[in-house]
Amino acid sequence: MSLLWPGEERAGDLFSEAAFLAAMVRVEEAWLAAIVSSGIAPEEARTPLAGLVSEDDVPGLAEGAEGGGNPVIGLVKVLRGRLDGEPARWLHKGLTSQDVVDTALVLCLRDVLERVEEELASQAVSLVGLARDHRATVMSGRTLTQHAVPITFGLKAATWLGGLTDATEPLRRARTSLPAQIGGAAGTLAAVVGLARLRGVADPVGAARTAAETTATTLGLAPRAPWHTSRGPLTTAGDALVAAADVWGRIATDITLLTRPEIGELVEPAGEGRGGSSTMPHKSNPVLSVLVRRHALAAPPLAATLHTAAASYVDERPDGAWHAEWETLATLARRSVVAASQTTELLAGLRVDAARMRATAEAAGADLLAEQRSLTGFVGGDVLTGTDAASGLDDYLGATDALIDSAVARAHETWKDLS
Amino acid sequence: MSLLWPGEERAGDLFSEAAFLAAMVRVEEAWLAAIVSSGIAPEEARTPLAGLVSEDDVPGLAEGAEGGGNPVIGLVKVLRGRLDGEPARWLHKGLTSQDVVDTALVLCLRDVLERVEEELASQAVSLVGLARDHRATVMSGRTLTQHAVPITFGLKAATWLGGLTDATEPLRRARTSLPAQIGGAAGTLAAVVGLARLRGVADPVGAARTAAETTATTLGLAPRAPWHTSRGPLTTAGDALVAAADVWGRIATDITLLTRPEIGELVEPAGEGRGGSSTMPHKSNPVLSVLVRRHALAAPPLAATLHTAAASYVDERPDGAWHAEWETLATLARRSVVAASQTTELLAGLRVDAARMRATAEAAGADLLAEQRSLTGFVGGDVLTGTDAASGLDDYLGATDALIDSAVARAHETWKDLS
Amino acid sequence: MSLLWPGEERAGDLFSEAAFLAAMVRVEEAWLAAIVSSGIAPEEARTPLAGLVSEDDVPGLAEGAEGGGNPVIGLVKVLRGRLDGEPARWLHKGLTSQDVVDTALVLCLRDVLERVEEELASQAVSLVGLARDHRATVMSGRTLTQHAVPITFGLKAATWLGGLTDATEPLRRARTSLPAQIGGAAGTLAAVVGLARLRGVADPVGAARTAAETTATTLGLAPRAPWHTSRGPLTTAGDALVAAADVWGRIATDITLLTRPEIGELVEPAGEGRGGSSTMPHKSNPVLSVLVRRHALAAPPLAATLHTAAASYVDERPDGAWHAEWETLATLARRSVVAASQTTELLAGLRVDAARMRATAEAAGADLLAEQRSLTGFVGGDVLTGTDAASGLDDYLGATDALIDSAVARAHETWKDLS
Amino acid sequence: MSLLWPGEERAGDLFSEAAFLAAMVRVEEAWLAAIVSSGIAPEEARTPLAGLVSEDDVPGLAEGAEGGGNPVIGLVKVLRGRLDGEPARWLHKGLTSQDVVDTALVLCLRDVLERVEEELASQAVSLVGLARDHRATVMSGRTLTQHAVPITFGLKAATWLGGLTDATEPLRRARTSLPAQIGGAAGTLAAVVGLARLRGVADPVGAARTAAETTATTLGLAPRAPWHTSRGPLTTAGDALVAAADVWGRIATDITLLTRPEIGELVEPAGEGRGGSSTMPHKSNPVLSVLVRRHALAAPPLAATLHTAAASYVDERPDGAWHAEWETLATLARRSVVAASQTTELLAGLRVDAARMRATAEAAGADLLAEQRSLTGFVGGDVLTGTDAASGLDDYLGATDALIDSAVARAHETWKDLS
Repeated sequence: MSLLWPGEERAGDLFSEAAFLAAMVRVEEAWLAAIVSSGIAPEEARTPLAGLVSEDDVPGLAEGAEGGGNPVIGLVKVLRGRLDGEPARWLHKGLTSQDVVDTALVLCLRDVLERVEEELASQAVSLVGLARDHRATVMSGRTLTQHAVPITFGLKAATWLGGLTDATEPLRRARTSLPAQIGGAAGTLAAVVGLARLRGVADPVGAARTAAETTATTLGLAPRAPWHTSRGPLTTAGDALVAAADVWGRIATDITLLTRPEIGELVEPAGEGRGGSSTMPHKSNPVLSVLVRRHALAAPPLAATLHTAAASYVDERPDGAWHAEWETLATLARRSVVAASQTTELLAGLRVDAARMRATAEAAGADLLAEQRSLTGFVGGDVLTGTDAASGLDDYLGATDALIDSAVARAHETWKDLS
Repeated sequence: MSLLWPGEERAGDLFSEAAFLAAMVRVEEAWLAAIVSSGIAPEEARTPLAGLVSEDDVPGLAEGAEGGGNPVIGLVKVLRGRLDGEPARWLHKGLTSQDVVDTALVLCLRDVLERVEEELASQAVSLVGLARDHRATVMSGRTLTQHAVPITFGLKAATWLGGLTDATEPLRRARTSLPAQIGGAAGTLAAVVGLARLRGVADPVGAARTAAETTATTLGLAPRAPWHTSRGPLTTAGDALVAAADVWGRIATDITLLTRPEIGELVEPAGEGRGGSSTMPHKSNPVLSVLVRRHALAAPPLAATLHTAAASYVDERPDGAWHAEWETLATLARRSVVAASQTTELLAGLRVDAARMRATAEAAGADLLAEQRSLTGFVGGDVLTGTDAASGLDDYLGATDALIDSAVARAHETWKDLS
Repeated sequence: MSLLWPGEERAGDLFSEAAFLAAMVRVEEAWLAAIVSSGIAPEEARTPLAGLVSEDDVPGLAEGAEGGGNPVIGLVKVLRGRLDGEPARWLHKGLTSQDVVDTALVLCLRDVLERVEEELASQAVSLVGLARDHRATVMSGRTLTQHAVPITFGLKAATWLGGLTDATEPLRRARTSLPAQIGGAAGTLAAVVGLARLRGVADPVGAARTAAETTATTLGLAPRAPWHTSRGPLTTAGDALVAAADVWGRIATDITLLTRPEIGELVEPAGEGRGGSSTMPHKSNPVLSVLVRRHALAAPPLAATLHTAAASYVDERPDGAWHAEWETLATLARRSVVAASQTTELLAGLRVDAARMRATAEAAGADLLAEQRSLTGFVGGDVLTGTDAASGLDDYLGATDALIDSAVARAHETWKDLS
Repeated sequence: MSLLWPGEERAGDLFSEAAFLAAMVRVEEAWLAAIVSSGIAPEEARTPLAGLVSEDDVPGLAEGAEGGGNPVIGLVKVLRGRLDGEPARWLHKGLTSQDVVDTALVLCLRDVLERVEEELASQAVSLVGLARDHRATVMSGRTLTQHAVPITFGLKAATWLGGLTDATEPLRRARTSLPAQIGGAAGTLAAVVGLARLRGVADPVGAARTAAETTATTLGLAPRAPWHTSRGPLTTAGDALVAAADVWGRIATDITLLTRPEIGELVEPAGEGRGGSSTMPHKSNPVLSVLVRRHALAAPPLAATLHTAAASYVDERPDGAWHAEWETLATLARRSVVAASQTTELLAGLRVDAARMRATAEAAGADLLAEQRSLTGFVGGDVLTGTDAASGLDDYLGATDALIDSAVARAHETWKDLS
């Protein structure tokens, strides 16, 4: 919840500080179990860690995080203090801080991407409905702010839908390829291989790599070689979230325009206390669109920061670039959930004033049909349509119907269970 | 406190959610007093508001902020509910939400800028000391990563100092010109003028403008015409904070390099639990420099967002750009305090290994004096210096002494009471 | 001229490749003269360089620039090849490539800033005129896209003017403080001091610093200590240009909105072939506003790059950050001239449809006066204005007149000779 | 060729102004042929256009581009003037400016992506070689600037290779899905459908869509519904180029560090006139790495601009966002080719000083093996390795061999014909 980013509570606990802490604990637990399973640690070392720390530990761990530059050192100390015997001894053995932070970031990100994809699917349902219902709802097609040629609102919705469809595949791909990070101090897995060797494991390297893969699988992540200095997995996810923000922003920009009283073709869904003013009793502001646009304006520079960080990596762990990613990613992720949720609500309740659309288009008929008239003159035959603007608008829609059908069909391919 | 931005607690309550809430209340209180003083509201309307809301109100107000798109509507309602009579009636009369949000942002920003300037002054003290103490501490001057010609560490410190001096003036200028925002619904002051007229005030426009100026003065801010759609005051402050981050980042980048074991010319100040690793017992990482660099990497895009927002303003209050500024500004401001504080600590305790600097420079003497030799050949006279690298290094320092003196003198002009 | 950035030719030769080449030559010439004047080089070394290279040398020098990473090495070689005797021998002696590149960048930037300031002054003239002429031209004040309270177009123009006024001072300050860069290989002036010593100059350090100052003065730049690793002068100029872009963008955003046919309150100036379409004969697009908005969208990230570079400086010349600045700065600068020029033309010819403004405001009278009615109810006395919307609009303008006067007065302080 | 972006000539004619002009002509030609093939235009309208305009037309067309806001209006006029009869009449019929500009941008981008992918394949060859040859070349693994645990240079090369492999798939995907843009004035294909109807074509909508698909196929692009307001195709390509820049930047950052004389583990390939200085005869600067880092610093904000533009689209063609994309995309694309080519050269000739790597690692042996010693103590058994650092380094490499094999195998999957 934030006074400075209204609607922030829509993100709930996704990628919150507490969620990040819990994710770090899940990583430690999965790793502990994996080194037991692969015979590197003794069976007695296996233990659940889930209940050992809670949200109440966040402030203390946060305060201690500056000393080592990350919260893992303090977390391991706290966890060890709350464990006994072999679990306490074996906890975190073979890992490095970056393993825990990166894999926890990825777990938080995964939950965010899942949620964003759910929202996109809901938005697609709304847009398929709008595209179909308003297939023939003529409105002015506007370019560079001026009347151009007629379109239908169904086509506009279908074009928005096309944008959403484009944005979905990269999110899915980013999510399903999110990798665990298990590499040890410099990405060689030396400590865990060393432990395996000291413990007399038959194939120490094999056991270590199995432990890494098991950890990934346990957490539902993709196993892969250490990516401690190749930050593609994070920038890819960041770019995919920004691409989604672009589409929401583009939709919201259209809506803020079309809800203007001088145009009045769309109205945002009403909500209790929604859109009011502190002094003007009559106001009904398109608050959802405004807040979505806010995110779209602020999101691209956050993803750019992830890229700048990625390009500045040096050595086997860099001198600032890694630390710049964490909160940047969390902010981008949480705000994406907020904007996704707002867009879902916006599209689900969007009210279309088809009569106003038609009236405006008819009033602008001379302009909207100017291209058409020039064609008639060009070919030199009969006029293309009836003599009045009203019928001309319906006749000069080109492939609108087919384009709507295509967009809807493509959406059905993307979201198999689209209602 | 943040797991994701270690050191965040250094910002304390500066520009926190609670500080922003308190600032909004101060704005309402100052305005209420001002409309009483100027005769627009009755004397009984004047009341202190400070104790009426607390940090505990943040969650509720935050959650309610989405409806109207900002937290002011809810705040006014809460405050009215905790007041009676004339204060309750007159509260917020004549203001609009943007007046309260913008002026509160500015108040929070002012406190941040003051703190950052204090840190800069402390840093200047350290750098003046380093510049003087190491005036003759020869080291390799490096360009494009290679040995170039000799410098002294005192000159390097003086150059850092020059950067800090450059960064200070814009911060001061931004702070001292921070304006209150008092304009009413669309920047005309219509409501307060209307109230003054209805209440029979002699010069309604004059009284309204006086109330606006009094509010600014009460809050220690500059009075000025409404800047509701001209966001220069915010972008200027943002740019000044980023310019400071650039200097800190530039210093920290030098330090992360020079603390590398292969170079070893500088060592970060030791601190309890500072610089350790979760698995490598010998590690002594330059954590402060790393965390400062983190900020320098992430700051420029935040200021860019403020500009993008400023350029997207439309109408008398825009459809997303305003909302994009709030948290962006708060994040930039709080992180600036964190990095400022870290840099102060870093410079105050920086350890210089003069012997190592000299040893490296002497070992690289042939390269560092190559330019010098070419000059000697060029002029054709006697050799410029003694026959060995050791003495040549001290002789080929050009105007180093004078440049250090200039930088220190300039610092004394900027910080009058520099010890 | 550019197919990809229409209007680019408005920048003429400002900060072009040829202008940059000429500026580098001017730096070499001024330095050569300065080391003669200060007694370091012999009188016969002084020579004009202006005619020695031309635009035709750009391709060859550009192609050769990669080898050394900058064009100075090649330029010095070419110049020496076209000189004889002492001028050829003494050319560039004591300088380093960065001195030449940085000072040439600054010279190009200075010319750009001068031009941008001239454009701003012209724009101010137009806006003062619009503010006065339309002081009482009532229009709808809109917030979050909806009708709020009445304003006048004169007030809108005055608010735009306030933004321009804000943007002017930083540009002037940046321009008048633009420093020459003279530091030699690592900012110590060692080579020139060494030459002075070898040549038996009485006070070698003093002579070297005098030569540096003379060079600055000759070029009309501010003398200052080397800023080879403190990039404040460039980021400050970049930020000032972006702040101007913000104001132009904000104006253009209002204009693109208000020229929409459904609103129709403003019309862009007509121009030959301006605003047409490749297929729609009726089109009259607000091309100037569109192109100005383009710049405002693309400018902030360019200034952010300058900051990211500044924060990444290391050593006495960095490993990439310096090189990232040159074209970034030139692009930002040239586009600033283009947008400045377009905005001047836009504002000089802007057509205002006062009748349409009034008609829309009257039609929206119930909404625009809702706040006013609530005040009347609040105070409980007589109604504030006449019974109809038409007269109410003129009566509910608050301090509009006074605010316009203030903005115009402030503009007169900023531009002394404002007609 | 550019003085301000050394190395720019490596991009040759890719996405140059002339290439963009030629691409626009190809679009017009392909469309003209397609409407003939689909029976909409008469057979006599078909004509080759390739020779009709040349690079010499760029200045004139560029200068004329501002009037309509894009170069297509002027281009169509010029082409018509150089044609006769049916080709002149039918040229551009059914298209809109955005169709021509967008599809030409995509064609230029396609050529750039192809070239960048070729460079990546070459780089992969070099890195596979380095990974294999230096599989056992021990060096210090460094984290947060300090010695951590041993790695091998082969593993570092394999990790770089992993980054390149990650970057390749998105580039391929972006390239092979690059769509033609054929939509007409507002994305409805109304004009071409209307022409087909007027010309008595049996299935006007089918013929129009066939013409659009044929155009795409002719140009080697993917057919798809108009994406005139859904800019995913451009932002996806931009993000993919930046992701590649991140990897090159990350490699170059390592190289600039490791070529420092105090470290000296890598040396850039020598080249004629490469790495020299204008004043220091001994200098051998890592110029290629420096120039690659330059691009990596400047690229992310360019891609962010594409996103900001995409999110600002409104109507059926926006009021500034579209125009902001063109040069931004061209700059990002051309610089990508430059940096790709530089990285290829850098990696092909990179010289590895294995002895120096080993010597540094051995000297740092106590630190590099500190983790290992702690493990031995932890498990309590025999010491893990021999008693000296020298042999310990080779023994504490964990899964290095297996990780190199994995990276090489993955590269072979990505580049089938990898030598």
